[in-house]
Amino acid sequence: MVEKLPPITLKAIGIVRTGVTQRPEQGWQKVVSDIVINGSLTEALDGLEEFSHIIVLYWMHQATSREAPLKIHPRGRKELPLTGFFATRSPNRPNRIGKATVRLLQRQGNILRVEGLDAIDGTPVIDIKPYLPGYDAPTNAKVAPWITEYC
Amino acid sequence: MVEKLPPITLKAIGIVRTGVTQRPEQGWQKVVSDIVINGSLTEALDGLEEFSHIIVLYWMHQATSREAPLKIHPRGRKELPLTGFFATRSPNRPNRIGKATVRLLQRQGNILRVEGLDAIDGTPVIDIKPYLPGYDAPTNAKVAPWITEYC
Repeated sequence: MVEKLPPITLKAIGIVRTGVTQRPEQGWQKVVSDIVINGSLTEALDGLEEFSHIIVLYWMHQATSREAPLKIHPRGRKELPLTGFFATRSPNRPNRIGKATVRLLQRQGNILRVEGLDAIDGTPVIDIKPYLPGYDAPTNAKVAPWITEYC
Repeated sequence: MVEKLPPITLKAIGIVRTGVTQRPEQGWQKVVSDIVINGSLTEALDGLEEFSHIIVLYWMHQATSREAPLKIHPRGRKELPLTGFFATRSPNRPNRIGKATVRLLQRQGNILRVEGLDAIDGTPVIDIKPYLPGYDAPTNAKVAPWITEYC
């Protein structure tokens, strides 16, 4: 029955602008990026500046387009266990949507300046949502043991 | 330049099965649902059972298909301020992707039993990710004042 669901079409609502063109060695935490939203949607950002953090959904356009193997070593690190890709954050998955929660430094018109977005220059953005700790951050979450070596 | 980005096509990887066909009066927190993943992807779920919580991206297929007004009263409640839709979690947005973080009660083959998923029966699922508090839950997040009346 899942196979029979019709395909879904998305349109980018913005694009990431940053000097970063590949994963920085020291990680993404301090990377500052601009998200340039389609000008026709500027007004839809009104009120976002009242939130300190936002959720960014983006399209990982540089992930390989060949079919993802069902199980992988996270980040290609052979010392981490072979794991189904749905149990990792690998970009090589059927729908290559990335989800990041980042600090909103500034909103100016249709441009959102953010810190910590792990997306390279030119990445298409497909949604922006306010981060709501009471809804988005359950307490006492348990993770797989290999995660401590990963983050 | 945003306008020139090519459209993106998604394929559902699963479907929500639950007795719930509309938003319950008492909220979604206690609703138990099954996410039935496409059988060909079963192995890609291996390792997910080591996480207590997962992120579900789903397609809010019942949102109105007419173009979203740029500013809305959250949940249609006139006492809440007129707010750009990107500053709300309204389903009426250009790309109708919902993002929920839910408790994983059980994984059995290609079926994930979860608690708290705010999606009605038949909702197409487009991605599953492990919830990583160190990455997904920033500390000291500030929200708009109207949120306290909303959640």
